[in-house]
Amino acid sequence: MLLKQNLSLYRILKLTWKVDLGMLLLCAVVCYIDINFFPKSQIPFHLPALLGTALAFFVAFNNNQAYDRWWEARIIWGGLVNDSRSWTRALLHYTNDRACARKMIFRHIGFLYALKASLRKVEDFSYRKYLSQEEIEIVDRFSNTPNAIMDLQAKDLQYLATEEPRIDGFRFLALNNLLTNFCDGMGKSERIKNTVFPTTYVYFTRLFIWILVTLITLTSSNAIGYAAIIIGWLIGFVFHATHINGMTIMNPFDLDPSCIPLNSIVRTIEINLLEALEKTDIPAPEKTIREGEYIL
Amino acid sequence: MLLKQNLSLYRILKLTWKVDLGMLLLCAVVCYIDINFFPKSQIPFHLPALLGTALAFFVAFNNNQAYDRWWEARIIWGGLVNDSRSWTRALLHYTNDRACARKMIFRHIGFLYALKASLRKVEDFSYRKYLSQEEIEIVDRFSNTPNAIMDLQAKDLQYLATEEPRIDGFRFLALNNLLTNFCDGMGKSERIKNTVFPTTYVYFTRLFIWILVTLITLTSSNAIGYAAIIIGWLIGFVFHATHINGMTIMNPFDLDPSCIPLNSIVRTIEINLLEALEKTDIPAPEKTIREGEYIL
Amino acid sequence: MLLKQNLSLYRILKLTWKVDLGMLLLCAVVCYIDINFFPKSQIPFHLPALLGTALAFFVAFNNNQAYDRWWEARIIWGGLVNDSRSWTRALLHYTNDRACARKMIFRHIGFLYALKASLRKVEDFSYRKYLSQEEIEIVDRFSNTPNAIMDLQAKDLQYLATEEPRIDGFRFLALNNLLTNFCDGMGKSERIKNTVFPTTYVYFTRLFIWILVTLITLTSSNAIGYAAIIIGWLIGFVFHATHINGMTIMNPFDLDPSCIPLNSIVRTIEINLLEALEKTDIPAPEKTIREGEYIL
Amino acid sequence: MLLKQNLSLYRILKLTWKVDLGMLLLCAVVCYIDINFFPKSQIPFHLPALLGTALAFFVAFNNNQAYDRWWEARIIWGGLVNDSRSWTRALLHYTNDRACARKMIFRHIGFLYALKASLRKVEDFSYRKYLSQEEIEIVDRFSNTPNAIMDLQAKDLQYLATEEPRIDGFRFLALNNLLTNFCDGMGKSERIKNTVFPTTYVYFTRLFIWILVTLITLTSSNAIGYAAIIIGWLIGFVFHATHINGMTIMNPFDLDPSCIPLNSIVRTIEINLLEALEKTDIPAPEKTIREGEYIL
Amino acid sequence: MLLKQNLSLYRILKLTWKVDLGMLLLCAVVCYIDINFFPKSQIPFHLPALLGTALAFFVAFNNNQAYDRWWEARIIWGGLVNDSRSWTRALLHYTNDRACARKMIFRHIGFLYALKASLRKVEDFSYRKYLSQEEIEIVDRFSNTPNAIMDLQAKDLQYLATEEPRIDGFRFLALNNLLTNFCDGMGKSERIKNTVFPTTYVYFTRLFIWILVTLITLTSSNAIGYAAIIIGWLIGFVFHATHINGMTIMNPFDLDPSCIPLNSIVRTIEINLLEALEKTDIPAPEKTIREGEYIL
Repeated sequence: MLLKQNLSLYRILKLTWKVDLGMLLLCAVVCYIDINFFPKSQIPFHLPALLGTALAFFVAFNNNQAYDRWWEARIIWGGLVNDSRSWTRALLHYTNDRACARKMIFRHIGFLYALKASLRKVEDFSYRKYLSQEEIEIVDRFSNTPNAIMDLQAKDLQYLATEEPRIDGFRFLALNNLLTNFCDGMGKSERIKNTVFPTTYVYFTRLFIWILVTLITLTSSNAIGYAAIIIGWLIGFVFHATHINGMTIMNPFDLDPSCIPLNSIVRTIEINLLEALEKTDIPAPEKTIREGEYIL
Repeated sequence: MLLKQNLSLYRILKLTWKVDLGMLLLCAVVCYIDINFFPKSQIPFHLPALLGTALAFFVAFNNNQAYDRWWEARIIWGGLVNDSRSWTRALLHYTNDRACARKMIFRHIGFLYALKASLRKVEDFSYRKYLSQEEIEIVDRFSNTPNAIMDLQAKDLQYLATEEPRIDGFRFLALNNLLTNFCDGMGKSERIKNTVFPTTYVYFTRLFIWILVTLITLTSSNAIGYAAIIIGWLIGFVFHATHINGMTIMNPFDLDPSCIPLNSIVRTIEINLLEALEKTDIPAPEKTIREGEYIL
Repeated sequence: MLLKQNLSLYRILKLTWKVDLGMLLLCAVVCYIDINFFPKSQIPFHLPALLGTALAFFVAFNNNQAYDRWWEARIIWGGLVNDSRSWTRALLHYTNDRACARKMIFRHIGFLYALKASLRKVEDFSYRKYLSQEEIEIVDRFSNTPNAIMDLQAKDLQYLATEEPRIDGFRFLALNNLLTNFCDGMGKSERIKNTVFPTTYVYFTRLFIWILVTLITLTSSNAIGYAAIIIGWLIGFVFHATHINGMTIMNPFDLDPSCIPLNSIVRTIEINLLEALEKTDIPAPEKTIREGEYIL
Repeated sequence: MLLKQNLSLYRILKLTWKVDLGMLLLCAVVCYIDINFFPKSQIPFHLPALLGTALAFFVAFNNNQAYDRWWEARIIWGGLVNDSRSWTRALLHYTNDRACARKMIFRHIGFLYALKASLRKVEDFSYRKYLSQEEIEIVDRFSNTPNAIMDLQAKDLQYLATEEPRIDGFRFLALNNLLTNFCDGMGKSERIKNTVFPTTYVYFTRLFIWILVTLITLTSSNAIGYAAIIIGWLIGFVFHATHINGMTIMNPFDLDPSCIPLNSIVRTIEINLLEALEKTDIPAPEKTIREGEYIL
Repeated sequence: MLLKQNLSLYRILKLTWKVDLGMLLLCAVVCYIDINFFPKSQIPFHLPALLGTALAFFVAFNNNQAYDRWWEARIIWGGLVNDSRSWTRALLHYTNDRACARKMIFRHIGFLYALKASLRKVEDFSYRKYLSQEEIEIVDRFSNTPNAIMDLQAKDLQYLATEEPRIDGFRFLALNNLLTNFCDGMGKSERIKNTVFPTTYVYFTRLFIWILVTLITLTSSNAIGYAAIIIGWLIGFVFHATHINGMTIMNPFDLDPSCIPLNSIVRTIEINLLEALEKTDIPAPEKTIREGEYIL
């Protein structure tokens, strides 16, 4: 998650330098050909305007859907924060078997670490810290680690509900609902992670921007000569920057400064839960990166 | 679901070659008539612009609704994934009758295969693999196969809740809620499948694009001669491509590379559920098609 | 619900012939006056463009809200389909009093027929086929027929829950939730039916289109003479067709080819429910109308 | 709620006569100054167009939010209708204490009248008709009348659930959920009533329309002389009318013909509930106002 | 929350004086250079128009998301109002242990004060007024004060449900659901508070407005000389004002006149709850600020 409103020149160039070079080259070539070989033909001004209308739709559409994916991802993980707190509160106060409650709260932290690693597709075994050796062995038999951890939770929940001093049906229901919520949060995150945004939209957007840049250079070169290179690049920069902007948040679980700060969120839950368990060796919040510019 | 961002030239031509030919022909005819028979008349430039405004609304509207249908379909099947996991978890851990639980989990895989076949309107009897001979006979009496399978689930759920060692009301409620969710997921999928997008929108969009192409060729031919054919086609291509784009995801349960990858989703659930049942002969994930371009 | 993507010329003319004639007349008059009495004055081109911007907002706004009403109506009736299946499944499998269950399922079909008649404001007593003589007499005392039928359902649900062999609280809760859903579906349908879309939007849209047609004819007549009549009509046709389009789905429970096919949906539920009751005299699905063009 | 699609000239003038006069005056002054003092300067045409783009956003934004508030208000009261019917159905059929049920249904009608009066900020004591003298005294001690009535309902619900013949926990739960829904409906209505739409949007919209009118008159006066007064007013009328339109439904609980017809909705519920109680002195539905033009 | 529709000149200047000065300076410099050094070059008019299209998307996008955040924040706190009333109603009428009920209602007011202070990031210990000394000590051990208060509520809820005369499972469930809602409301508020709106959108919007102002001055200076300074500033003012407008409600829990009036909402709940507890020393509603212009 980006934290500073003023982007460094570094980030802007990092995002756009490739298309910037490409556009300047294209505009120069188009300008040269138009001025030297077709000095009299003049493409009417309303054509780039019409194309701009279609393009504005594409760029707005992509950005809206990207933002919706990003914000939905944020809402899902916000929900996981809330339900993690409710899970801890219910286990600590509505059950008498404190040992089992502690085990289930620890294991829930492990679930979050495993889910984070699975969404980011990195090899990260931090979740093992919160599981017993026996549990790790069971979990390793399954291809979907966080789902396997939830099975363990369900087993212990059934244990709490059948052994003396046992919790009654209403408490069982409340805890099972939270378990279902965790399952839904996991599945929704996977849906956003695994569903590719229709690639045709992205492809045509890029294609149409390049056509627009060409048309603008053509319609401007007669009036202002080689200055049309700058103008073509400028308009192209505006559209490309807007488009690239949206693309950076399209896959909100990537390891990008603009994406959902899973490290920071999981750490916050971890701290809250360990505090509730009255532990003393509580880790520090996640650090910001590159001079406080963003967190991951 | 398309997986690659760079569309092959093959797919673009496949999508648009018919309208491309049609537009080039139309532009050529219009250009020829305008240049030879009405060399002096000039239609004002602001008319195509005004028409473009109306058209932009139509194209944006169609695309937005198409995307909403596509994304809702994806959410519905994401929900089926989550609830399938919860169904398995609950049956394995909250009941003692393991044989009945296995039967109900197997049958659920059958339900998903039957629903997939029904949505794609193909003759596919894969679901029978997960039903007993007796069940297949019962199910075949009904016109709606997946609904008939759910009736069997309800019957066994009632059995679990009344026979010793029986599940209590709270567990019955949790499982019945999941059953209702499956029913809702099925009904919502059928709604999207069976509801035709208002055909007038599609028809008028196409009509207006052809009118726009004609007007653009007319307003450009005086200025740039036969090059107006290229210009008319170019603008028309942009609008047609955008429109056709949206149409490919309008019916998200069709067997199209852009649509919801039901094969892949059902297979993923199948693998998860068979793993949970500790089966060993687990099928492989669905393969990608045409050099990793898409999955179905 | 329209089924064919290619509109017959018949339907387009049926929708627009009145405004088409009106516009052609208006354009002719305006053109005649402008050419003969104000041959030199020229209204700037950017005025119709500015008006077009405002108009595009109006037309888009109306169409979006119309589509939302239409799609919400479709979702409501999709929900009634799902809940009708769940209602039948629960009554048949979770109760032992099969006679009462059959009565309540029959009565539910009656409820749907009564709701359909009430939404379409037609005199249709089909619902009586599924009620006993005694029930018909009770229901006739109330002004709101479907609501009265639901009262009978609640009475029998209470009977099921108190008489031996009775259903327990959890099953009572599940069935009562479905009853509440039916009540909500009915109320939501009535809300869409009875809430008039703010009339000012519709009125001003029409007014502004007529103003736009006038302005376009005025700004074109100097350049292209009496051909401005065609141009004025063409742009007006695009806006009027778009607007009329939206209006046809604004009241989705009307008896219009574009509206929600209540006949077909109710018949589908009827067939599903009678099949579940193992009846043999099951009615055929609703027929399509006018050469497969639409269903009602 | 307006019922007729054709607005009378009376209503249009009533809505806009002030700004109409103001705009005509402004245009005349601007026109006079421009023609007499700056006969040669010419502001480029693209400036009003650019301003129009920004303005279109503002007007669309305000109208969209206004409509959302209006439609949300309608949904809330539609929900109150549905839950009132469920409340009555549950009390009459799921309880044995008919006297208490009647009292609670009567009191619910009182709740709706009190809520209506509170939302419209009028002194209306109709609610007292449905409360006993004792209850009126209790309610009068609180500043929020409808909330106080709900406290009485909760008290009687607890009575029903503890005294013999008492309702069981499941019925208690169902009725308590409805009570919570009433509380939510009340709170949501208050939220819409009490939250002022960000005033900056309304203010800047008006400011920008006046600037646009000025610019249009300036850019048109050179070409068409004093006819620019009409043109300036016409464009201004379109934007002002659109803006004022939205504002009339921004506060949907006001006593305006365009707003939510609380009188009519409350009366409909009253009739339904009294019918269910088999009362004979049932009031007539609310009348339409000004020749069937609208209801309140 | 702003209460008056007419903004004082004071507020407009306060919001925009910095960019106003900056724009006037920029326009003057650009105008001077263009008129004196490039008197003949003329940038085509359609370039600012195209840029305006892209800019309109950015400004609309930012404003829409800002308004959505603001309105969601308002809905969350409206939900807290509703649930606070339900919490009080349930505790007072569904439990017999009046002392414990009072304690839990008092503590809930403390929770709201603690949540408000935490969202506004101010040092405000008002919440201590509603907690006992012992509770304050426990709460101070945790970094998240409102969450710690909820743990105390859960503890007392468990007490109510296990000690004689105890509440049954259904009442426990209803109260626990409200507790979960409070937890969700808190978490959702924190999500909006802590999630920075993607900074790239804000940054590029500002950048593109400055480019647009430059282009407009360049394209106007040839036609109208130094008057282009005013025109450039005017268009820039419209876009900047719109953008700044949106930014003021982007973080709706800030201490700004446009933001959610937490003081006023918390005070309203406090009054309602103390009235329900029949207290006599009830505080007055929050005062409006700066001559009734806004409340906090």
